[in-house]
Order: sequence, then C-alpha cells, then structure tokens
Amino acid sequence: MNAMFESAELGHKIDKDTYDREVPVLRAALLDAQMDMAKLAQFPVIILVGGVDGAGRGETVNLLNEWMDPRYLQTHGMGDPSDEELDRPMMWRFWRELPPKGRIGIFLGSWYTWPIIKRVQGHTKMAELDQSLERAQRLETMLVDEGALILKFWMHLSRDRQQKRLKILEKDPKTRWRVTPRDWEHYNLYDKFHVVGESVIRHTSTAEAPWTIVEGFDPNYRSLTVGKIILDAIRKRLDEAGREMTEISAPPPLPSIDNLDILKKLNLDQKIDKKDYLNELEKYQGKLALLTRQPKFKNITVIAMFEGNDAAGKGGAIRRITGALDARCYNVIPVAAPTEEERAQPYLWRFWRHIPRRGRVTIFDRSWYGRVLVERVEKLCSEANWMRAYSEINDFEAQLVRNNTVVVKFWLSISKEEQLKRFKEREAVAFKHFKITPEDWRNREKWDEYEQAVCDMVDRTSTEIAPWTLVEANDKYFARIKVLKTLCQKIEAAMKNLENSKT
Amino acid sequence: MNAMFESAELGHKIDKDTYDREVPVLRAALLDAQMDMAKLAQFPVIILVGGVDGAGRGETVNLLNEWMDPRYLQTHGMGDPSDEELDRPMMWRFWRELPPKGRIGIFLGSWYTWPIIKRVQGHTKMAELDQSLERAQRLETMLVDEGALILKFWMHLSRDRQQKRLKILEKDPKTRWRVTPRDWEHYNLYDKFHVVGESVIRHTSTAEAPWTIVEGFDPNYRSLTVGKIILDAIRKRLDEAGREMTEISAPPPLPSIDNLDILKKLNLDQKIDKKDYLNELEKYQGKLALLTRQPKFKNITVIAMFEGNDAAGKGGAIRRITGALDARCYNVIPVAAPTEEERAQPYLWRFWRHIPRRGRVTIFDRSWYGRVLVERVEKLCSEANWMRAYSEINDFEAQLVRNNTVVVKFWLSISKEEQLKRFKEREAVAFKHFKITPEDWRNREKWDEYEQAVCDMVDRTSTEIAPWTLVEANDKYFARIKVLKTLCQKIEAAMKNLENSKT
Repeated sequence: MNAMFESAELGHKIDKDTYDREVPVLRAALLDAQMDMAKLAQFPVIILVGGVDGAGRGETVNLLNEWMDPRYLQTHGMGDPSDEELDRPMMWRFWRELPPKGRIGIFLGSWYTWPIIKRVQGHTKMAELDQSLERAQRLETMLVDEGALILKFWMHLSRDRQQKRLKILEKDPKTRWRVTPRDWEHYNLYDKFHVVGESVIRHTSTAEAPWTIVEGFDPNYRSLTVGKIILDAIRKRLDEAGREMTEISAPPPLPSIDNLDILKKLNLDQKIDKKDYLNELEKYQGKLALLTRQPKFKNITVIAMFEGNDAAGKGGAIRRITGALDARCYNVIPVAAPTEEERAQPYLWRFWRHIPRRGRVTIFDRSWYGRVLVERVEKLCSEANWMRAYSEINDFEAQLVRNNTVVVKFWLSISKEEQLKRFKEREAVAFKHFKITPEDWRNREKWDEYEQAVCDMVDRTSTEIAPWTLVEANDKYFARIKVLKTLCQKIEAAMKNLENSKT
Repeated sequence: MNAMFESAELGHKIDKDTYDREVPVLRAALLDAQMDMAKLAQFPVIILVGGVDGAGRGETVNLLNEWMDPRYLQTHGMGDPSDEELDRPMMWRFWRELPPKGRIGIFLGSWYTWPIIKRVQGHTKMAELDQSLERAQRLETMLVDEGALILKFWMHLSRDRQQKRLKILEKDPKTRWRVTPRDWEHYNLYDKFHVVGESVIRHTSTAEAPWTIVEGFDPNYRSLTVGKIILDAIRKRLDEAGREMTEISAPPPLPSIDNLDILKKLNLDQKIDKKDYLNELEKYQGKLALLTRQPKFKNITVIAMFEGNDAAGKGGAIRRITGALDARCYNVIPVAAPTEEERAQPYLWRFWRHIPRRGRVTIFDRSWYGRVLVERVEKLCSEANWMRAYSEINDFEAQLVRNNTVVVKFWLSISKEEQLKRFKEREAVAFKHFKITPEDWRNREKWDEYEQAVCDMVDRTSTEIAPWTLVEANDKYFARIKVLKTLCQKIEAAMKNLENSKT
C-alpha cells in the first residue's frame, strides 16, 4: 500500500443524516459563489477530474452539475479527439474548451489522461511520460499566472473496492450500462495504473494546482468532499479578488545589457538590384508553389510570423508569399487589439484559435510577441506578465513544432533613417496615407526602448526548434527574397525530416 | 448551345497592353475599397466562385488574393467536410466561415457545389435539387437582409474550350498538378453539368444576389472582369453606406389580432401535488436518462429551447432536464447580449455557433426568438428586421430538423398575478435577490405588448416540424413534468423515425 493513497483507503463515509443536512447549505453556497464569479468575471475555474474507474468520477460531476447553475458551468468529456483535433497539437482541444473568466469548466479526462493510459498500456516510456507531465505543469503554471483557479481531483479506490464497485454497478440494471469491457480491462491493469497514477500525482501536485485525492467508494463522502473543496477555493479567490491582484511573483528585472549587437551588427543596407530581384522572386515563388503542392505537404503545417519596425515592409513580404500559394490553403491573421471574447481568456488563446489544420499555411502579421514588444514598452502589462511570456511562448512554439509545424519567425529590421524616409513617403502619397498614423510617430520616439525589447526577445526566444530570422530590410527587394528563401528552406527541411522519421 | 451562356462563348479576350495598363489602376482601387470597408466595418462581402473545371476558378481567386490585401480577405476551399462538419446541418460549415463585417470571404465551392455534383452524378432527383436551391436562395436573402454584399461568379467554358484548356494545363509541367482524373471525369459529364449549371443559375440569379457568367478561357479577360465587378459592387455599397441604411423592404405590418386566445385559453392553474410530482419526476428523469444512453441516441441531436415570462421557472425546468443527463453530453447556453464578434455577424450566427454534434443535447435559456420578443417590444430592431426573422427562424429550424435534430421549443406561461407574487418573493429572499432587477419590473409594464408578440410568434413559428409547446407554469411542479414528458416523447419519436427510415 502506498502512503500517498493511504488516507483515501480508510473507508471514509458520510451518513445519510449528515449528508441531507449539509447538502442544501452547500448547494446554496455554491450557487452564490457562482453568481459572484459571473458578476465579477475576473477569473475562470478549471476543474480536472481523474482517477480510477468506478470511483464515481462521472457521478460526482453529474451531481456538481445538479447542484450548480448549469448556465455558468460546462462539462467536457474529453473522449477520442475529432479529426480537426488530431490535426493540431494535443493541447488545442483543451484550449478551445477553456472556460472564459467568470465561468467554470469541468474536464472529465484531462491533459493527464492520455499520457497515463499510454504509459499503463506500455506504449510510452517513463521518459515520455515525464515530458508530458512537464508540459502539463507548464500549461497549468501559465493558466494560474493568467488568473485561472485550477482544481484537480483524483478519485481513488483500493483494488478490492474497485472490484466491488464495478460488480455493484453491473448488478443494477439502472447502472449496468456504465460498466464497459474497457473498465474491466483497466481493472486488470490496476496495479500498473496505481503506480503510474501515484507518480503523476506526485510530480504534478504543485502549490498553485494541487491534486486532491478523494476516496471514491462512498458517494456521500466523495460528493460532499469535492463540493466543499470547490466552494472553499472559489470563495477564497473571490475574497482575494477584492484586493489588488498584481502580486504574481515577478522574476528579477532584466540586467541592463550594454551591447545591443544583435540588431546593430546587422548590415541593413544589403541590396539586390531589380533584375536580380525579379529572377529570384520567380525562382523562390516557384519553389514555394511546388513545395506546398507536393502530396507530403499535407502532413505538415506552416506558421510564418512577421514582426518588425513600423514601415519595415511586413505587408509586402507577406504578399510575396501568398502570391505563390493556393488561396485555398492559407490564411493571413492581422493581429489587432483583442476582442472581448479574447480578453476573457488567457493571452495565448487568441493565437491558439487560429492554429490551422495540417497542409495549411497561416501567416501572422504581428503575433504573440506583442506582449514582449509593444505591451512591454508601452507598459500595457506588468513586468511580471511580460517576463513570464518568454517561456510561455517557447512552450507554445515547442508544441507547434512537435506537431510537425514549421514555425518561421521573421524580424524585419530597418534603420531609424530608413523609417523616417518611409514615413515621409507615406505621408506624401495619398494612396498610402492610411498606412501612417500619429501612433507610428509616437512609437518612433521610443526607438531605443523597442530595440532593447527586440534584443531581449531574440535572446530569450530564438530557440533551436524555432529560431528567429533577422531580415535586413532597408532594401525591400533584399528583404523579400530573404524571407521567401528562408521559408522554402524551412519547409524543405521539415519535409525531409518527416521522410527520415518515417523510414 | 444555350442562350444563357452564349455571351460567355464569344471568345472574349483582353490584349496584354490593355491588361498591363488597367491592372495597376484596378489594384489600387481594390485596395482602397478594402480599406474603406475595413474602416467602416458595416457589411461583409461574400464572393462565391463556381463553374466549369479548367475555367480558371482557382487562378482567378489566387490573383484576387494577390491584388488585394490578404489581411482583410479570406479564401475558403470548401472541399470534403470534416467529421465535425458532417455531424451538423450542411450549412454549418459555411456559417462558421462567414466573413465578419468589413471583411471579404471568397468561397471556392459553395452551397451550390454539392447539390450540382450530386445531381450531375445522378444521386439526386430534380426535385431535390430544386429544394436545395430554394434553401440556398433563402440563405442568401437572409444574408443580404443582414447587410451582406453577395457576388456570385460562374466561370464558363464551351465544351471544346474546356478540353483545350485541360490539355494546355496538362502539357505544362508547372500546371500539370492542377489537372486531376476528377477533372476529366467531370469533362465527360460536360453536357449534363452544363444543363444542371444552367438551371441552377437561372433559378438562383436574384436581384439581390445575381450570378455573373464569365468566360474563362482568356486569363486576362476573366481576371479583369471579375476584379472590376467586385470593385464596382463594393464601391457602390460604400457610397450607399453614407446614406441611411434602413430601406430594407418592410413587409406590411401585422394586422391587429383581436383574440389573444392562444395564451388566454391556457389553463395556467393546472397543478399536481408534491407526491405525484416526485413520482413523475423520477419516472421521466429515469426515462430521459435511459433514452439518452441508448446507442442510437448517438445519431440524433437534441436542441431544447426555453422562452417564457420573467420568473416563469425556466431555470428550474432546465435543471430538471440536466439532472437526468450525463454531464458530458449536454451544454446549457444562456443567451445574453451579443459579444462584439457576434455583432459583426448575421443575427443567427451566435446560435449556429452553438449547434452541437450528434449524440449531444444543447439547451438554450432564451434563444433566437429574442428578436421577435424583447427586440420587437423594446424596439431594439426595426419592424422589417423582426418581421423577416419569422421565416429566417423557420428556415433555421428546418435545417436542424433535416439533420436529425429534435427541436423542442417551450414557452413557459404564468399569469400576471403569479408573476407579481414571484417577484415579491424574490425580493424578500436575500438568496434569490440577484434574480430580480429593475428591468424585470419595467418589462412587466409591457405585459400586453409581450403577450401580443408571443401570440404572433407562436402563430408564425409553430411549424409541423418544430411546434411550440406551451407550458402552463403557475404551478412549477406541473410545468416541470410537462417539460420532461414532452422532451421524452419527442426524443422517443425521433428515434423511432430514424429506425423506420433505415429499414
């Protein structure tokens, strides 16, 4: 017997009288808490329910749904993924179901389910499980930092009790449908499941998102326990919400870096002449066209992302890419201020929602790096928030890459003089007038601060798997060719990789 | 030779000089128009591109994408539907891709594609095609009424020219990949395709959304033609947008109805006592639980929708349903004010987005009837808009029912006296306080107007396939049992129907 589950094998029980007395009070309090949450709309509650078959996971969740207001609560049975979900990183299906601020989302089956099952069935090694757990933990840290309240329940039964429960359920014609051959299959793996479960709980029970192990044999006990924990946690958060919310632990501020050589070392004035440009353009657009029309392109996803100084030529570069693509297979996402639905979700949600299926190209005109660029410089978010964004972004991109996504990140760099020239040109040409706003001039005043932010960004997010491509862009022709060439190379490399991994 | 396509077989051609001279002007004007559209954000543009294989549909769309700003334009190649799409009414996949106001959406393959292909291949009869066309037309009327600009292009080639084009494409290694065996297959069906296409165009070329037949052989001609038509149409709409936009043709106002007997004839005071209630509750909740757990339930969808007087007990009735369901298979949608993303779309969009997959239950707490109830009475939308909502809603529900959806619509009716009693009760009980607002009292003052609106609504939307169930709700027990019983009956009937249609 494992010490960890010991107190969940004591035979906890709540008698009917106590239960009948406590439930109405609990229900009223839960409803109240839900209303306050909805009114405040400051944080979502994410409840994960896992554990042993027959330990009452489904029944408990059904009861919670009965007790609470189903309008502000949604339960997600995360069964087999759909084809649209299979085409994207594993976490996408959770992102799309995240509750917005003010609501509760219950996940029956979570980001732990498949890693555990695969390990129990011997399809993965311990190291792979560990990696999955690390990823799960990073996701949770991010969600908590974004304000989410996460509650994780593990419904436990001893081996004997699991057998007993399954037999009770099977005997009653009303509950017989609940016991499937899969349940007995899992029962036979009890010991293995137990060991893996224990290890998962141990590794992922963090201060910010701890597991609660609940003995599942007695319905009264488990329901009251889960209900009370949820109530207490929400109530506590609501009480805190009155106070200022900015006490998220901030990492130490950035050390001042005295050499900004990443950008300053670039030779921005590299040029090619028009004739060469047109030749190269044809060459690389042709190459891109052919690459994206190969049958094996259906197995990869391309995400190209553009950041750069104002007037650096992002739009023009993007059009040179899309010009080579079939219009049916790409999508350009201009990143603007978040909508109200997006504001009710974690920062990265508005990018996750645009992650395409396989065989498609999505181009972001500005991106998730907004947080560490404009939001940092303009002080639109706290230092703690943009500081943690670096690792969140790295995690995000790692998930994309793991799912055969080619992530290409371009920084289009022009000199301060070149920018001035382009601003003035734009003001002069009526047709391009809409492209220059007072905001552009204001941003320009903060040139040095932006430069610092860009250097930090590149330092912290130019990873092995998703490196930045710095594009010298004083000459538009040069920049566009470098963009196209880089994109072709990355796609080609990814396709070769895919082939090698298959053989 | 058919007269309809005659002018698209004349051998239209634009020489290179003219083309090179006109394109830059057209491009600049298109970009300008796009910018104005985006800034105004008053209407979306929906472009459908259909026609004969080899007539340059894809190339034209690619060129449009090159000419315009891809950030405000999205192209959808409507190929085979995903499993998530197959689980829902056919139109769902179009609804989810509709461009918001200010944007352009190009559909390569539209709501006409499958009906035409199925007919050409002989899988459907003429009558079925006609029905599809009628549905398509109703959709377009609705979109236009909601402000959309719809442009439909049919790229045409004569039989000889189609053969010639396919051969040209096949010869060039750069374009060879474009010609698939399917294209030749279609070519062999040219005559049939021609006849069906002609009939489709004739039936669906309406004043509000006309087809433009474009000869597809000469790339210069077809590109310039399509580009100019798009430009002119957008420009015209932009010019109109300056003026007041309320000239949507209003149907004659409702005749005053002197007998409001639908509601007044109800015996609102029907009662059952607590003991009977508890017995019946157990009976019907048990029944519902079993029904929704049958394997064949996976083939249907249930949408239950609640409207009713304020304080009529919608929430309580909903909880009695959800109490019988597995939390994994249902979702409750509380209908509140639309979000900004929803406001950028046609009225029904915010309901379409919640249409569930098969095997699931979605419960709407208030619904799409808001337009003909609160929005009508409170004058939140014009008479023309709520008047047309009746038939749009009937269409919407017909689509759901056609896709094996059980649509159950409840109106919970209480008397004015009963409402007063409940309002006062709510004010007295602190716990229920949040349930009563000054707005509730204001609505109450308009009791008669609401009653008129309800009667009109029932008259006009209680269809054979999706009838209203009026629930006498002065007694909560009676109301809840009637709701549960009705729901069980409808689900049972749908399952039987499904079985019969299979055998």
